[in-house]
Amino acid sequence: MNRRLGIAVIGAGWMGRVHSEAYRRLAGLLPLPGVDVELRWVVDREPHLCRDLAERYGFGRFTTDWTEPLRDPEVSVLDVCLPNAYHREAVLGAVSERKHVLCEKPLGKDPRESEEMYRAAQEAGICHQTAFNYRRVPALAFARELIAGGELGELREFRGQFLQDFAADPGVPASWRFASSVAGAGSLATLGSHLLDLTRWLMGEVTAIAGASQTFIAERPVEDGRPVRVDVDDTSCLVARFAGRAIGLLQTSWVAHGRRCQLEVEVHGSRGSLVFSLERMNELQFCEGDGPSTRKGFRTIHVGQSHPYGGVFELKTGMNLGWRDTFVLQAHEFLKAVLEGRPATPSFYDGWQVDRLIAVAAEAGRGDGWVSVPPVPT
Amino acid sequence: MNRRLGIAVIGAGWMGRVHSEAYRRLAGLLPLPGVDVELRWVVDREPHLCRDLAERYGFGRFTTDWTEPLRDPEVSVLDVCLPNAYHREAVLGAVSERKHVLCEKPLGKDPRESEEMYRAAQEAGICHQTAFNYRRVPALAFARELIAGGELGELREFRGQFLQDFAADPGVPASWRFASSVAGAGSLATLGSHLLDLTRWLMGEVTAIAGASQTFIAERPVEDGRPVRVDVDDTSCLVARFAGRAIGLLQTSWVAHGRRCQLEVEVHGSRGSLVFSLERMNELQFCEGDGPSTRKGFRTIHVGQSHPYGGVFELKTGMNLGWRDTFVLQAHEFLKAVLEGRPATPSFYDGWQVDRLIAVAAEAGRGDGWVSVPPVPT
Amino acid sequence: MNRRLGIAVIGAGWMGRVHSEAYRRLAGLLPLPGVDVELRWVVDREPHLCRDLAERYGFGRFTTDWTEPLRDPEVSVLDVCLPNAYHREAVLGAVSERKHVLCEKPLGKDPRESEEMYRAAQEAGICHQTAFNYRRVPALAFARELIAGGELGELREFRGQFLQDFAADPGVPASWRFASSVAGAGSLATLGSHLLDLTRWLMGEVTAIAGASQTFIAERPVEDGRPVRVDVDDTSCLVARFAGRAIGLLQTSWVAHGRRCQLEVEVHGSRGSLVFSLERMNELQFCEGDGPSTRKGFRTIHVGQSHPYGGVFELKTGMNLGWRDTFVLQAHEFLKAVLEGRPATPSFYDGWQVDRLIAVAAEAGRGDGWVSVPPVPT
Amino acid sequence: MNRRLGIAVIGAGWMGRVHSEAYRRLAGLLPLPGVDVELRWVVDREPHLCRDLAERYGFGRFTTDWTEPLRDPEVSVLDVCLPNAYHREAVLGAVSERKHVLCEKPLGKDPRESEEMYRAAQEAGICHQTAFNYRRVPALAFARELIAGGELGELREFRGQFLQDFAADPGVPASWRFASSVAGAGSLATLGSHLLDLTRWLMGEVTAIAGASQTFIAERPVEDGRPVRVDVDDTSCLVARFAGRAIGLLQTSWVAHGRRCQLEVEVHGSRGSLVFSLERMNELQFCEGDGPSTRKGFRTIHVGQSHPYGGVFELKTGMNLGWRDTFVLQAHEFLKAVLEGRPATPSFYDGWQVDRLIAVAAEAGRGDGWVSVPPVPT
Repeated sequence: MNRRLGIAVIGAGWMGRVHSEAYRRLAGLLPLPGVDVELRWVVDREPHLCRDLAERYGFGRFTTDWTEPLRDPEVSVLDVCLPNAYHREAVLGAVSERKHVLCEKPLGKDPRESEEMYRAAQEAGICHQTAFNYRRVPALAFARELIAGGELGELREFRGQFLQDFAADPGVPASWRFASSVAGAGSLATLGSHLLDLTRWLMGEVTAIAGASQTFIAERPVEDGRPVRVDVDDTSCLVARFAGRAIGLLQTSWVAHGRRCQLEVEVHGSRGSLVFSLERMNELQFCEGDGPSTRKGFRTIHVGQSHPYGGVFELKTGMNLGWRDTFVLQAHEFLKAVLEGRPATPSFYDGWQVDRLIAVAAEAGRGDGWVSVPPVPT
Repeated sequence: MNRRLGIAVIGAGWMGRVHSEAYRRLAGLLPLPGVDVELRWVVDREPHLCRDLAERYGFGRFTTDWTEPLRDPEVSVLDVCLPNAYHREAVLGAVSERKHVLCEKPLGKDPRESEEMYRAAQEAGICHQTAFNYRRVPALAFARELIAGGELGELREFRGQFLQDFAADPGVPASWRFASSVAGAGSLATLGSHLLDLTRWLMGEVTAIAGASQTFIAERPVEDGRPVRVDVDDTSCLVARFAGRAIGLLQTSWVAHGRRCQLEVEVHGSRGSLVFSLERMNELQFCEGDGPSTRKGFRTIHVGQSHPYGGVFELKTGMNLGWRDTFVLQAHEFLKAVLEGRPATPSFYDGWQVDRLIAVAAEAGRGDGWVSVPPVPT
Repeated sequence: MNRRLGIAVIGAGWMGRVHSEAYRRLAGLLPLPGVDVELRWVVDREPHLCRDLAERYGFGRFTTDWTEPLRDPEVSVLDVCLPNAYHREAVLGAVSERKHVLCEKPLGKDPRESEEMYRAAQEAGICHQTAFNYRRVPALAFARELIAGGELGELREFRGQFLQDFAADPGVPASWRFASSVAGAGSLATLGSHLLDLTRWLMGEVTAIAGASQTFIAERPVEDGRPVRVDVDDTSCLVARFAGRAIGLLQTSWVAHGRRCQLEVEVHGSRGSLVFSLERMNELQFCEGDGPSTRKGFRTIHVGQSHPYGGVFELKTGMNLGWRDTFVLQAHEFLKAVLEGRPATPSFYDGWQVDRLIAVAAEAGRGDGWVSVPPVPT
Repeated sequence: MNRRLGIAVIGAGWMGRVHSEAYRRLAGLLPLPGVDVELRWVVDREPHLCRDLAERYGFGRFTTDWTEPLRDPEVSVLDVCLPNAYHREAVLGAVSERKHVLCEKPLGKDPRESEEMYRAAQEAGICHQTAFNYRRVPALAFARELIAGGELGELREFRGQFLQDFAADPGVPASWRFASSVAGAGSLATLGSHLLDLTRWLMGEVTAIAGASQTFIAERPVEDGRPVRVDVDDTSCLVARFAGRAIGLLQTSWVAHGRRCQLEVEVHGSRGSLVFSLERMNELQFCEGDGPSTRKGFRTIHVGQSHPYGGVFELKTGMNLGWRDTFVLQAHEFLKAVLEGRPATPSFYDGWQVDRLIAVAAEAGRGDGWVSVPPVPT
């Protein structure tokens, strides 16, 4: 008789739907021995969204009151898929009931919130994770393996860009993403959170940031056509210093025509280099620095069987893993950590550090020069 | 109260696992209104494979006797995921019990088998489909839309290659794929079936083929190390004529170093051109023939929201749909056809035509010059 | 006091201009020790073209009578840049006066002509070269080095395409290239000559060809707007057998939208693979078959200092050598052979073999199945 | 009877050789009507280099005393190809004798020097040019045309990188490029001068720079093996503000494995985007912002006949213009300006502005935050 692991998904929007599917796919692709994952609750303030998601993914219960699942002793895990303005309340509620929590990114509206969440979770001894799903892209996990294995030598130069063009058209309507009071920042928060997590993960800690942010489209329409002021960055161009000697470039933009979802990283080290682009997420470009000059060049490696997560989806090398598949890997990592009673990764600590970097980047983007990342308070 | 649609999956190997997951994902991604998909039976001659698959995907029953589900009146659909030597028996059994059948490719061991299956299914009035899942790749579906919409004008030239390198190492062990008595042909059957289906789908009917096949690795080891003779093609290089004036190149190979899963098609028409490669399955290269010469060139289009199947996986443009996702779309198309009582596409007719082309190609590959595709018997 | 090497360029059209510049550049880039290259005559039936070329490149004399330079004892080298219908007469004239001859490609209008030229030149003991300038592209020369050095192992599969789109528009006027009586064949002659030379050079001898040719645009306008019948191939799709076990695909087309000048070759061997495209002529894609699977992939090698001809143009790796530069290398190879009294390469023999292949391909393109390349008559 | 235009090339090293060839090629490719370009003097302190260059390119005279050609009334143009520490003296000497001057980049050792040169040249009324040859790359000239024609709309975001790897190996010996006293800066001067010129040319004036420079290889060997201290940047990562609202990223590096000569620019505007990479210098990636979303994407445009400089080298579209060819175009632009008595472009003013930007970038690279580009003194 299997043990049940009850999950409540809070928020039935895009991310709620994607996370829910990921849990459902675990049993087939990555079963947890002796454990049945139970989709127990889905919560949203829109009842029809709850109901719809419950039907699609087999949630046993749904409600518009997010505190209900907290009181359900059969719920072990809360998965917070709300807009980030509501993360804090949900997470702290979960923690107070000693539920394990997976929370969407960015973790908080600002680093103070995320620190509070991290410290509360840590103190309560629960398992916590921030949903930086791109860490589960096999080509990126392989990149990290190469770096960790010393194959790039000393890290020296970094370029990280997350460019999209969904907001390039001034007719794209205003939403919470364009309001600093809710989102904290613009492309820096929405896109930068992923980018900065990968940056830290691959390169180590950022110590200082300088740069510039710009709002090109100062007003956007709302439903009734009335224009609303935009007070967040459309683009941010940054330069970073890392612990050690490395330096690098960072950019986020949602107005970059033709860059549909280009999360691109380029790392140069003393022994080699690599380049990754999310638009071609199953490839890693890798150049070894040694060897004969006649053979030197970037190699296009299609990830497959022998790379990280190679067996999970039973893909032959050259077949493509998709964006949704990364969420299955993320869900698996989290539930395994819960079951094994060990910290999950990336944790709220990582979420907090990213929020600290967003805040530093946003301050830098106002144009006052270098802003140091303060020491992590103990 | 939803109607139940009972499915039996025959064969619990790789394809069986992939198809099973696809059915499970339907409820979340593409629910069939008023219908519950029930994974009722899984069959394999290896009991542990059945049991494992039953547990992973929630099949209600499993057995090593493939006739059992045929006798189950609650089963509406048989999904045949066996090696192709066993397709005929399973399909004819299903048809005789008036079950709808989805069958893996190539449909038969030879075109006589597939004709028999097609005619039996057709006569029985059941819904039948051949598992050419690449028709569900959005970029390819978009390519076909462009062609069908006349945007390439008259079709003129075609290049279709399906190159892999999994068998490039002579140490790769012998298996049924390397025996003509079971597989019918070598790379021509395993890879060529997908390639020829796409060729027909995009270009229309092939009328004649010439070419050459070659076996480079004449012996492969089996478990005890004993070498076994290989009597199928490692590579086939072909030229084809199409109804109309178009001509083209075709190639299959499983010994092409560096081509991991390169199913590539290039179509030139009087008004424009396109190129697709499965290794970058979310992209289509498209060149319009008109317009100013200074702007002429292939455009890299990342498929997304506004392309075929755009909303299903809720991907933003530039995010990647994966190989497994195509099976969800395939399962959906089939079950919808079953429920609507209409023919599914690609049907057994398509499977049969592809088998006819494989046979023609194999004969051409023996090097006797042009081999005409005989008229479809009525 | 330097020895003078007198050169006569016959034909002051495009190729005449390009060859003339190449000779002029030798003194600076690749001086021949103790030798001054003298541009002594330029010949064309259009006096203004002669005069213009003489002025531009410093030819000492010009004439509309191509036999004049033959009678000039100071002329050592004849460079024939005429349309190929006139090659035979000019070459045989040169040979009869024991002038060394460089001739544009295709060498003859048909293989009989080119055999005659080859045999006459050989008998006269002069130095002869066919202008297959792409053999001087460093990336292709490097490809050949890799093959010759055994780094691809046994050669197995070949794809060679020369696709352009200059004639895709039906309004492109008729010219000698579209008339079989003058050009011998269509895209097969104009593009196929280069392609087939590279094919032989990289892969060894072709033994048989099958395929199909097609004329899509049956009429083209001449100056007065009157349509003229086109009787040569717009496209040819071929399959080839090579001495040894290799097989391959070949294609030529001048109606392939978006392929501006795509001379592409792909070679797969037992130990590795390579791909070259003329549109990116400074790159070679190379994949080694051995090594760990996690690192396998095509590497983009930018040719430079350490590749063939690396020092000639003093390019840093990554800087681009251009199309005109290959003619300097060609001219150098020819004049050096002349001065050293050794055969030049590619010689008339190579030109002859290519013309034999064009003829075989054209016959194959008429669709009668495999056409064997007859043994080279002794 | 043609007028003679006497040229003296000062410096017989790499650039001296490349410039000399460019002048020689003018008569054939871009003759100046009524004018004969005379290579009259070549100067170098190494007599054997002078003699060699004189022989190769037909200079009438050579000397180790650079003031000699200044006193030659037949000399109209001085072409300064010395290391930049010697530019000032040569240029001012030329100006005092009212010779027109083309000078290699960077113009001065620092902006004070280049200002002095600019003002002196301007006052003397001579024609002056800085050798930013990449402005003559057709794909970049086409990029500028697109921008100037408003096809990108308002310019918003820029990425400019010039990355090489020639110095990635710590064994690469010390030279003047690694000494700030001679070179002014490291990769910022050698690579950044080209990059910053293109940046200004495409984007307009830079108003402020922040960033970080780093020296990774602190010592390099000299001939006797003794290590020498390196005091310039191996890498600089910068962010820039432009007049108007645009912001951007800039990077130079000579230790970036696999980037052989990657001068890459990416421009995003309100209406479209473009990307150029010098390693593929015959291509421009262009994305139009409008049009249907299903067709949106970067188009690979091979430059050719209908693009800037299209007819000069008589290349068919898809054939490659090479790096050396850009110098022919540069020489032509300069001599034409001299003959027409109009300012040349890019002039010493541009050289000066670039040197001001290098200085600002170098200061910014020391890490003190934003450094404004001071107003151009009048």
